[in-house]
Amino acid sequence: MEKIKVAIIGCGTIANSAHIPAYMKNEKAEIKYFCDIIPERADAAVEKYGVGKAVYDYKEVLADPEIEAVSICTPNYMHSVIAVDALEAGKNVLCEKPAARILSEAKRMLEAAERTGKILNIGVCNRFHDSVTRIKEYIDEGRLGEVYHVYASFRAHRSIPGLGGAFTTKAIAGGGALIDWGVHFIDLILYCVGDPKPLTVSGTAFSKLGVDMKNYTYESMWAGPPDYNGTYDVDDSVVGIVRTEGPVVSLNGAWAQNIGKSEMFIDFMGTKAGVRLEYGGHFTLYTAEHGALVEYTPKFEIKNMYEKEIDSFLDCVRTQEGNRADIRKIIHSSEIMQALYDSSDLGREVVVE
Amino acid sequence: MEKIKVAIIGCGTIANSAHIPAYMKNEKAEIKYFCDIIPERADAAVEKYGVGKAVYDYKEVLADPEIEAVSICTPNYMHSVIAVDALEAGKNVLCEKPAARILSEAKRMLEAAERTGKILNIGVCNRFHDSVTRIKEYIDEGRLGEVYHVYASFRAHRSIPGLGGAFTTKAIAGGGALIDWGVHFIDLILYCVGDPKPLTVSGTAFSKLGVDMKNYTYESMWAGPPDYNGTYDVDDSVVGIVRTEGPVVSLNGAWAQNIGKSEMFIDFMGTKAGVRLEYGGHFTLYTAEHGALVEYTPKFEIKNMYEKEIDSFLDCVRTQEGNRADIRKIIHSSEIMQALYDSSDLGREVVVE
Amino acid sequence: MEKIKVAIIGCGTIANSAHIPAYMKNEKAEIKYFCDIIPERADAAVEKYGVGKAVYDYKEVLADPEIEAVSICTPNYMHSVIAVDALEAGKNVLCEKPAARILSEAKRMLEAAERTGKILNIGVCNRFHDSVTRIKEYIDEGRLGEVYHVYASFRAHRSIPGLGGAFTTKAIAGGGALIDWGVHFIDLILYCVGDPKPLTVSGTAFSKLGVDMKNYTYESMWAGPPDYNGTYDVDDSVVGIVRTEGPVVSLNGAWAQNIGKSEMFIDFMGTKAGVRLEYGGHFTLYTAEHGALVEYTPKFEIKNMYEKEIDSFLDCVRTQEGNRADIRKIIHSSEIMQALYDSSDLGREVVVE
Amino acid sequence: MEKIKVAIIGCGTIANSAHIPAYMKNEKAEIKYFCDIIPERADAAVEKYGVGKAVYDYKEVLADPEIEAVSICTPNYMHSVIAVDALEAGKNVLCEKPAARILSEAKRMLEAAERTGKILNIGVCNRFHDSVTRIKEYIDEGRLGEVYHVYASFRAHRSIPGLGGAFTTKAIAGGGALIDWGVHFIDLILYCVGDPKPLTVSGTAFSKLGVDMKNYTYESMWAGPPDYNGTYDVDDSVVGIVRTEGPVVSLNGAWAQNIGKSEMFIDFMGTKAGVRLEYGGHFTLYTAEHGALVEYTPKFEIKNMYEKEIDSFLDCVRTQEGNRADIRKIIHSSEIMQALYDSSDLGREVVVE
Repeated sequence: MEKIKVAIIGCGTIANSAHIPAYMKNEKAEIKYFCDIIPERADAAVEKYGVGKAVYDYKEVLADPEIEAVSICTPNYMHSVIAVDALEAGKNVLCEKPAARILSEAKRMLEAAERTGKILNIGVCNRFHDSVTRIKEYIDEGRLGEVYHVYASFRAHRSIPGLGGAFTTKAIAGGGALIDWGVHFIDLILYCVGDPKPLTVSGTAFSKLGVDMKNYTYESMWAGPPDYNGTYDVDDSVVGIVRTEGPVVSLNGAWAQNIGKSEMFIDFMGTKAGVRLEYGGHFTLYTAEHGALVEYTPKFEIKNMYEKEIDSFLDCVRTQEGNRADIRKIIHSSEIMQALYDSSDLGREVVVE
Repeated sequence: MEKIKVAIIGCGTIANSAHIPAYMKNEKAEIKYFCDIIPERADAAVEKYGVGKAVYDYKEVLADPEIEAVSICTPNYMHSVIAVDALEAGKNVLCEKPAARILSEAKRMLEAAERTGKILNIGVCNRFHDSVTRIKEYIDEGRLGEVYHVYASFRAHRSIPGLGGAFTTKAIAGGGALIDWGVHFIDLILYCVGDPKPLTVSGTAFSKLGVDMKNYTYESMWAGPPDYNGTYDVDDSVVGIVRTEGPVVSLNGAWAQNIGKSEMFIDFMGTKAGVRLEYGGHFTLYTAEHGALVEYTPKFEIKNMYEKEIDSFLDCVRTQEGNRADIRKIIHSSEIMQALYDSSDLGREVVVE
Repeated sequence: MEKIKVAIIGCGTIANSAHIPAYMKNEKAEIKYFCDIIPERADAAVEKYGVGKAVYDYKEVLADPEIEAVSICTPNYMHSVIAVDALEAGKNVLCEKPAARILSEAKRMLEAAERTGKILNIGVCNRFHDSVTRIKEYIDEGRLGEVYHVYASFRAHRSIPGLGGAFTTKAIAGGGALIDWGVHFIDLILYCVGDPKPLTVSGTAFSKLGVDMKNYTYESMWAGPPDYNGTYDVDDSVVGIVRTEGPVVSLNGAWAQNIGKSEMFIDFMGTKAGVRLEYGGHFTLYTAEHGALVEYTPKFEIKNMYEKEIDSFLDCVRTQEGNRADIRKIIHSSEIMQALYDSSDLGREVVVE
Repeated sequence: MEKIKVAIIGCGTIANSAHIPAYMKNEKAEIKYFCDIIPERADAAVEKYGVGKAVYDYKEVLADPEIEAVSICTPNYMHSVIAVDALEAGKNVLCEKPAARILSEAKRMLEAAERTGKILNIGVCNRFHDSVTRIKEYIDEGRLGEVYHVYASFRAHRSIPGLGGAFTTKAIAGGGALIDWGVHFIDLILYCVGDPKPLTVSGTAFSKLGVDMKNYTYESMWAGPPDYNGTYDVDDSVVGIVRTEGPVVSLNGAWAQNIGKSEMFIDFMGTKAGVRLEYGGHFTLYTAEHGALVEYTPKFEIKNMYEKEIDSFLDCVRTQEGNRADIRKIIHSSEIMQALYDSSDLGREVVVE
């Protein structure tokens, strides 16, 4: 079968660590363009991977009728603009998470997908993680009974990425710890419990440890060194509670906090059994059997979730049928994040319409 | 100096494990009565401690003009009744926590204390715990900077007390995990951060694991064996978020949940430093010094908090001046718990008046 | 059936916390004497338990033909003397662990048991612990495959008991951390793996933290407050390696060390599966099933091991047949401890004859 | 100053992950040759780093008078051969750890270094780790008092590298878990406590989990996929005890064991204080101050230890003076490993001459 011609728009960290290697390994696809407004990045990708052509304006990519699919790996503020343009140009789109900076942008993307009938997937990679898949199966089979509460802890000690850069500038990223890390946890939970509609959201997003940039002490910094002349106006921690048509979801997250633990896990509390998922890793099932309490921790090999994500996206491109990462499925995550930021600004609970 | 004549009203677990031994060791006091409506309990106390007289009606205690102080150690539903009667009889009162089942009862107690001018302390023993005292000092001295968020985790695996008995009957106890364990955590936090007024409260109290009493599997049970003909209509877990005039306080608690961890701790998140208190034990301070992150865990001897609580109460009786456990100081805990139960019933956030 | 008349010789901590309550609950036995050379202790026991007669010389007990069984709960230096006397007086004996201070004493006890034909059990209570029983079953059934190495960690931070008292005086106790805690771990291991004969022993017993008694800082102290005029000439930590006819056994133990962890566990390493037993608690089984690694932690109710120990001893008294705690079964523990102390003194490995 | 011309001999994992990047960043050196008997590897390095020339026979490197220094990154069985040849050719040598497969090879290397007067460093990179440096300073300053026991735990669950390949073939590697991981722990300890002479060694090296290669279940495998037609004749776990002129050193290590914990740490037990080093990371100091026990965990930035190692080696090349990684300093590690393997074969303790 002929290979799907693909373009990578945005050749930064997530493109190089996840999307590009996954396309390179996948026999269904062929990368035709590496696109980045920073020409060096596009050029470097061509050289590194030995395929494709470097371009610097995404509109050039969209103008090529051979291109069937694009991966959007730009900073968040360009997600909705490029995704809508691409859909309207008849392309199928895989857009990195979060869908967008704010809910209205995400809705515009959803509308464009519905209007054009093309595929729009969001890079909610955890929906393709083997542990998550198993937990969802357990829940669907009723092994946990009623899941009534899910608690997500995504708390690191001092892990602000690229202080002063794109990650910490609201106009570019839309937010901080919540939009960058929280989105994974919220989306993963919603997926496992059947994508229930959110009802009420109350929470606070704090911007406390990064604001005094010069005095922010850290052990290591991912996503680049600090830019002390840059901007820091995003949340570095967040707490919230979400009522849904299904379980209550509570969140406690931090890029940075003065508690020296890294507690990255999700607890699914069911009436028959519960599950603690160590984020990105394995899980333990807690249940009762024959009158005794039992812990059960399977340690299977976890396949690369990005490869599965890309492979499933390519199947969607072929079949033109939606999968678990379809924008329709993940719009609730955007609603919840928007409501959390709104609730934080207002100092009170927000009812999701 | 002459000893203060004291009466113990209610001779169950907390009386025997905490109040009575503390009075016995304290030179300022002398127990004159052991009172319980179950005569065997009162009699057993007289025999065990070799002092005092057994009585079975607390009004007999209140009628004795020699009695200056009473400890109320009954089930929660009698707290307000006896406390108000005792205050009106001119006695000074130490009433076990929670103050009462519901806020209106606690307010009646507060009013009686103000009307009579007598001492009314609540048994918020953690206010006398050496770790708590140190943490409050740190916060007061500014070592944590602004404390903007406090997270309380009081989560046990399967620890419902006396299934079917007084602890799990709402009419007697007023509630479950929140009112029995949560009260300690909420009160301890409020104390450390300066007893701020609560503003909004949103949360859910779940009654999920104990309701099917026959099928509730457990490892061990405190506060007596199950009574399968009894009642179970209280919360076995709770989650909530509280905005206050000071920090945001978030709660995640469970007498019982299908997560096999016992995570009993409080995190105080400040802009300069943070503290994790292992509930009932020691704490770690996380901070930055000279550009390096540092953890600091002092392991001092922790004195018996009940003895300190009783000793401070006796000082109040002598001086007629309030201390840190005065009903006026702890009414916010009752407000928060009431608002949490209300929010849970209503399915939305509650604004505290 | 008529009750077995029992005497308690030595009415200190272990008698009151374990032996006496177990006899009191057991319908097969009746305590006739409480014996202690400190008369107050014997008298206090009579008063507390409301049965028996206080005597102050154990020979008086042995002279009573009605007495069938005695529990020896004295300091270690009297174990062999009283046990041999009791056996020769025709009594059945349950002697607290360790069997004796040194191997030659233990052998004298073994010989007396063989000569008199009476029962001599040692208080190796862990042989009656439900987790230990299950682990032994797993091993016997072959579920672990070949158990080739067992590692015992009995390391506390600063937990020297009764500094300067009987526990820390070699002439009385025979040793410190090894003989007091190590004996439990060594014996438990030997039991689980089939009581193999020890071959070589190399190790060192350190006396480092308690010797400067005045400057020994601690959080809490069990077995009584420090006696700064007393003696401290025992080991506070120990490390060793034991080759046996079965697995290699390695030990790392400390009453006190400047590492602030309490790591009390035993790892059984088998070719098919392994087990970590949290000492005194539950265990986790690690194995592979269908190509996946699995952890399995059952959380059953653990029955009181002392009650089981006493009950089994009383059955031995009735049937005159040996059980798992018979002196013949546990002599290897004494051999290993003796060899460890010898190896430590000699600075080289010792071959067990 | 002119740059030192360097050659890399062996272009596998450790060369690419550690040596080459460190030389590339260092201004004192310039890589002239990449040498590997597998031509593709040498060629790939030239292409990847954009410097140097590919050669396939190390003798060609040694024949070039411009070359002052070589890094030996080959499998262990070639270490002594190439190192001796290089020294005799007048080159300065940095040889990856372990020095050699067996002690006699290591001694030959030491003799060659002494005979030729050239530098021979071993890649004991932990001697350049910032945590290790600090711990050594603490010990040298007396802050730990007498360090009497050091316990090294290097225990992984199921982490055998490249099953069936070079790592698990004794003729190539010389051994398994002990020689590959243990060498780091032993050497690091000896360094911190002043490189004391070993006196006695008793231990056992087990080959239990990898031998049945087909049935070896694992989660992930480093150093390449399994080669089921290859060889597995090395130790996958090891336990031992070493008396030295300084502290007793005890070891408990496993590439693979049926205990699902990864416990990689070293405990230095001193009379005044103790240190737990999380291997490769930070450490905690446990001590007593003003009558209270204190834990102290500094979290400084840890610099790349390989860059420091290479930089120090280049200084040695310039000054012709030895450093902390000199073969003379690390020969005790080889003695201990040899003695452990000998003790394991003999089933008894070995006295180090």
